[in-house]
Amino acid sequence: MTAPSDRMPAGYGRDGHGRLLVAGAAAVDWVAQNGSPLFIYDKALLAARVAQWRAAMPPAQHLHYAVKANPMPELVGTMAGLVDGFDVASAAEMQVALGALMAPQSVSFAGPGKRDSELKAAIAAGVTLHIESAGELARAGALARALGAKARVALRVNPPFALKGSGMKMGGLASAFGVDAADAPAVLQAMAAPGFDFIGFHVFAGSQNLSEEAILDCQRQTVGLAADLAAHAPRPPRLVNLGGGFGVPYFPADKPLDIEVLGRGLAAILAEPPPALAETGFALELGRWLVAEAGVYLTRIIDRKVSGGETFVIVDGGLHHQLAASGNFGTVVRRNYPVVNASHMGSAETVTVAGCLCTPLDRLADRAVLASPQVGDVIAIFMAGAYGRTASPEGFLGHPPAAEILA
Amino acid sequence: MTAPSDRMPAGYGRDGHGRLLVAGAAAVDWVAQNGSPLFIYDKALLAARVAQWRAAMPPAQHLHYAVKANPMPELVGTMAGLVDGFDVASAAEMQVALGALMAPQSVSFAGPGKRDSELKAAIAAGVTLHIESAGELARAGALARALGAKARVALRVNPPFALKGSGMKMGGLASAFGVDAADAPAVLQAMAAPGFDFIGFHVFAGSQNLSEEAILDCQRQTVGLAADLAAHAPRPPRLVNLGGGFGVPYFPADKPLDIEVLGRGLAAILAEPPPALAETGFALELGRWLVAEAGVYLTRIIDRKVSGGETFVIVDGGLHHQLAASGNFGTVVRRNYPVVNASHMGSAETVTVAGCLCTPLDRLADRAVLASPQVGDVIAIFMAGAYGRTASPEGFLGHPPAAEILA
Repeated sequence: MTAPSDRMPAGYGRDGHGRLLVAGAAAVDWVAQNGSPLFIYDKALLAARVAQWRAAMPPAQHLHYAVKANPMPELVGTMAGLVDGFDVASAAEMQVALGALMAPQSVSFAGPGKRDSELKAAIAAGVTLHIESAGELARAGALARALGAKARVALRVNPPFALKGSGMKMGGLASAFGVDAADAPAVLQAMAAPGFDFIGFHVFAGSQNLSEEAILDCQRQTVGLAADLAAHAPRPPRLVNLGGGFGVPYFPADKPLDIEVLGRGLAAILAEPPPALAETGFALELGRWLVAEAGVYLTRIIDRKVSGGETFVIVDGGLHHQLAASGNFGTVVRRNYPVVNASHMGSAETVTVAGCLCTPLDRLADRAVLASPQVGDVIAIFMAGAYGRTASPEGFLGHPPAAEILA
Repeated sequence: MTAPSDRMPAGYGRDGHGRLLVAGAAAVDWVAQNGSPLFIYDKALLAARVAQWRAAMPPAQHLHYAVKANPMPELVGTMAGLVDGFDVASAAEMQVALGALMAPQSVSFAGPGKRDSELKAAIAAGVTLHIESAGELARAGALARALGAKARVALRVNPPFALKGSGMKMGGLASAFGVDAADAPAVLQAMAAPGFDFIGFHVFAGSQNLSEEAILDCQRQTVGLAADLAAHAPRPPRLVNLGGGFGVPYFPADKPLDIEVLGRGLAAILAEPPPALAETGFALELGRWLVAEAGVYLTRIIDRKVSGGETFVIVDGGLHHQLAASGNFGTVVRRNYPVVNASHMGSAETVTVAGCLCTPLDRLADRAVLASPQVGDVIAIFMAGAYGRTASPEGFLGHPPAAEILA
């Protein structure tokens, strides 16, 4: 019998003892070998996800991985063999990307507050800078001249349209990101100076979106915007980064994206590109959609108690490892991520899973229906492959970091 | 002229050039010497805060510092000379407390998910365990026997009343913290076993509260609860930890607590203690109230841009250092912490201060009125002494950590 809370992403199963299987072995065995708490990322699920994407998308479409979603070096190394490029957001992420042997010309660096040291490192490495303002372009030009190098530059455009219904909207608003479309021609003209090698455009209009229609509408508008702006560019764009925004289903009412619908829609948009983009390649930049479901967070129960008629289990992990799952990172209404008792799935009891931190914010699941969890059992929280460990306040209250493996 | 946004906690000033003064020197000079971003904690403000507290409170009242608010070892070392005890929430915090030369019997360890290794370390060190459940008491007893030591134990009680109007409520609800008052007698009887040395009670009913009346009402009920439970204890309590909950004013409408009203009120409550508590000492456990206003976060402007008619400045810091100030940590409505342009205070322009992270969550101030901030200026965000660096996802996007000094 599957308990009401036993909703899991595809790719996870259970053995004959009702124990959760992750990457071909029992979750409790992974914990026995590696300690608790533990993040496991499943290489086979990463590869399957990319294969699903490639089967659905037009053959020429480029796939970029947004390293910020999960910068674990071993995972980035695996992704290097699967995708066509990396997007990074700091010098440290750039080092991880280059360390994974991704070719520098397939790495792009976006971020609204790049320091001179970061611009310099990117120019020296031959990484493409996604230029976020006229001021940043001027600094990059001066640094390129000083280095005697050309800066590879793409213009990040703050689009006049939004990706409707996104978890985070980034277009159609005044923004810290990119250059407003109206101001783009002047910045593009400045990119004709000898210190620059113009690559193309980057438009990122939102993230965590679960509407195929909204995503395709945004891609259509992005292609149109790039075609319009191409007239002002020093040369035809070689690559347009259409952004990402592909969401994943965290909550029961969330419907997973139909990737085949998205692939057919994008093929239609690009079937007859505007003449200004006839020679242009197109990339999608995905983070969360590629890696979230390939990761699971495992944490052992330390205590079990009843208070006010409710049952609580207290685990050795918490929001210091999985802030988003606790509902405290940019979330208004707290809801449970998918969660199971990895030690024995199935029969049902309503319990609250609290983290070990001495703060009431530290709840990993509120009144979840789990197989009667006992001290020593291992709780699994899914959707932990993206924005997990590094997006959490690891030092808060001084508990040890979680272990992290790629299996 | 003071700009509308130039609201600052007491203890900060400006020099003749309109530059913010922190700990006796210009903030921009601290940054020149220590780098940006930078947390500074002002020793003199810490001492003044404790002196203010002592002047207002009954002379016998104990003051404990909750290390979780700011565990920087140098700051904890300063606090060791100012307060009567430390409350810690992990083995690592316990090591910081003992490293600051606080006597072990003046250190107490609370937390709902203490591992066996943590219980053992606390027992061996002679630190008081705040027992959070019957199961935890049983584990502590077994470990004490194995060590041939006595475990100093206090009972943490989940009270049947709340601290009304708290930022975080912790009483009057089913809770992961402590033992429900109704279940306390049985746990207290178990504390009569030879492996335990019973110290007293701990009740924490809420935090970040700005109502003197609510705090005093809660203290009155806590004293009554401790007196009732004392009848079941193996010996009269030596110490009752009344919790904390003292809030600080983050936002313009917040009125600072009147500490003299709180002192007079507590003196009245304790003037004639119940007979069961005639020999008992009382402690308040404060974190945020002691250290929040003594800290400031300084971050340099990297870029300035206009988008959609709004002006943005982008700084080299962000939510990876100051998550709470970005409004993303357990907050529903985002509001600005007090913020100034530390390079020249005074005249007024409306700007949004965005952090350097490539995510729209990273806003440190929304449409704040600041003295016309330019690239190279230093922005100061106040209230950074508590729940700042360690309560933020330092590794998110791979930017460098902030420097941290005690001055």
